[in-house]
Amino acid sequence: MRAVCVIGLGLIGGSVLRAAARSGRQAWGATTSETDASAAVADGFTVASTEDALAKAVAEDALVVVAVPLPAVPDVLRVVGAVAPSCLLTDVVSVKEPVVDAVARFAPGVRYAGGHPMSGRSESGWAGGDAELFDGAPWVVASEDDTPLDAWLAAASLALDCGAHVVPASAGEHDAAVARISHLPHILAAVLASTGADGGPLALSLAAGSFTDGTRVAGTRPELVLAMCEGNRTALLDAVDDALGRLGAARGALASTGGLAATVRGGHDARGALVALREARVRGCDELRIGVTGEEAMDELRALGAGGGRVIRLEGDVAVACLPDD
Amino acid sequence: MRAVCVIGLGLIGGSVLRAAARSGRQAWGATTSETDASAAVADGFTVASTEDALAKAVAEDALVVVAVPLPAVPDVLRVVGAVAPSCLLTDVVSVKEPVVDAVARFAPGVRYAGGHPMSGRSESGWAGGDAELFDGAPWVVASEDDTPLDAWLAAASLALDCGAHVVPASAGEHDAAVARISHLPHILAAVLASTGADGGPLALSLAAGSFTDGTRVAGTRPELVLAMCEGNRTALLDAVDDALGRLGAARGALASTGGLAATVRGGHDARGALVALREARVRGCDELRIGVTGEEAMDELRALGAGGGRVIRLEGDVAVACLPDD
Repeated sequence: MRAVCVIGLGLIGGSVLRAAARSGRQAWGATTSETDASAAVADGFTVASTEDALAKAVAEDALVVVAVPLPAVPDVLRVVGAVAPSCLLTDVVSVKEPVVDAVARFAPGVRYAGGHPMSGRSESGWAGGDAELFDGAPWVVASEDDTPLDAWLAAASLALDCGAHVVPASAGEHDAAVARISHLPHILAAVLASTGADGGPLALSLAAGSFTDGTRVAGTRPELVLAMCEGNRTALLDAVDDALGRLGAARGALASTGGLAATVRGGHDARGALVALREARVRGCDELRIGVTGEEAMDELRALGAGGGRVIRLEGDVAVACLPDD
Repeated sequence: MRAVCVIGLGLIGGSVLRAAARSGRQAWGATTSETDASAAVADGFTVASTEDALAKAVAEDALVVVAVPLPAVPDVLRVVGAVAPSCLLTDVVSVKEPVVDAVARFAPGVRYAGGHPMSGRSESGWAGGDAELFDGAPWVVASEDDTPLDAWLAAASLALDCGAHVVPASAGEHDAAVARISHLPHILAAVLASTGADGGPLALSLAAGSFTDGTRVAGTRPELVLAMCEGNRTALLDAVDDALGRLGAARGALASTGGLAATVRGGHDARGALVALREARVRGCDELRIGVTGEEAMDELRALGAGGGRVIRLEGDVAVACLPDD
């Protein structure tokens, strides 16, 4: 099993280090946070400086995992470019196109396949992490036409060893999807909470399940939400424009005919599609085998992800995938 | 204890009939649904025609409760106006101003105080009802300058006997508040669900808690949502316009400066206000006593409701209320 070098030992990086070790891999890390470093060492993990950790990655032909917040990515990639210029590289940053750009600029010689595990919790730092954090969760592995096959296999293999399922998508597809299902929900929750609170204590004292559920993620720490949403600005603008168009259409229909059927029935069907996809996944799925070997591999993988499928294991360079039946 | 005559034996009316009987009151009902009528009779309740039920209400000086959907309200009120033209009347319809208008038009001689228990569940009809449905829930009792004091006391007393707390508000205040905390959440959930589903199976397969929670109520039966939202058109338009303005401002900020701080921090504070109000209620509250006796009574009651307070019991014509401390 390939060794793993994790740069950044916060909630996600710390969980990757633990989960990689749990799978039997040799794993070590680096962090600029003294708190996270001492906590990881106290838990029995090896923590070095970024330079030393990367030098060891070169010596061991390890997979390097960048697990720092987006604003810190360029600095880390500069060191990668200097110390480990042709390493196998992935990352776990929640937005993908800006990382692709940064890799091209600061570490153009690495063999890179980006990643994004769709797991989170409200805690942060090493102390909030957990080897089980990714069990059963989707983990996007970026699949571009020019993604090196060895980098893709290395990133996918780590995700699977961490207990996740691999969802292949291009960086752009990933950013567009998470704008809609992860970032927009935070914006709408904030809008709903503010509009409700403007009704004063009377409105809040009458609030029941629909308002409570609809505003829950507005309770997330603002710094986390801002980092996530502002980092995905272009794709989020598209999603917000789409939502504005739909809300404006609802407004127009309510004002003119008084009817909200298109809005409400459309939303009901869409929620039904979410529930149906999850139920199909529970019922089982059709197994597909995709060789990660030739020019068509990334195309096939992206088609799998676009159809709601996931890679559930690797057999050598064959990705065994699960596509929910209709 | 005053007897109760419930017209309409669906989820809410059926629950009122059961809860009124549970409190020791004499109670009977009427419904045009043969299914609900036989089910109620099988459960040991007295069910008559609307005319006979209302005639009995006159004979017993009972409180009449209109518990039919908004579109059926005028027909019921016509019969009330003919058979029980000066009865004590309340209702449990989820929007209040249209009912006020209908009472003025079809049964102008009744002594009326509208009501709205803020309880619901996905079941419908008599079979879905429950004597415990209102326990601990807020129940708005409309408090207008011209609300007859005996009607207010009768409606509030029924709400309390059903296990609810009474939130005083004018019909307009009620409709504005529920537009923001009950109807707008359904519109935004529909918009979020549709915008997410437009991202295709890839987006839905990456959806986690924020999307699942934010779209939950989009799974409600469309007919129920449409009846609720379209019945509160004027107030809902205000709420949707407010949400559109906030979402547009977020869009503008993201496009120009890239910053979402005002949106996200505002939403976080608003969610904090909801949580703080609920925590204050758990900690206890300052007790107030409001005499429901003079010209100022409705003013004082509305101020209580506007501040997030509730009437928790009646002592004769004194409303004992609970106002969460700051």
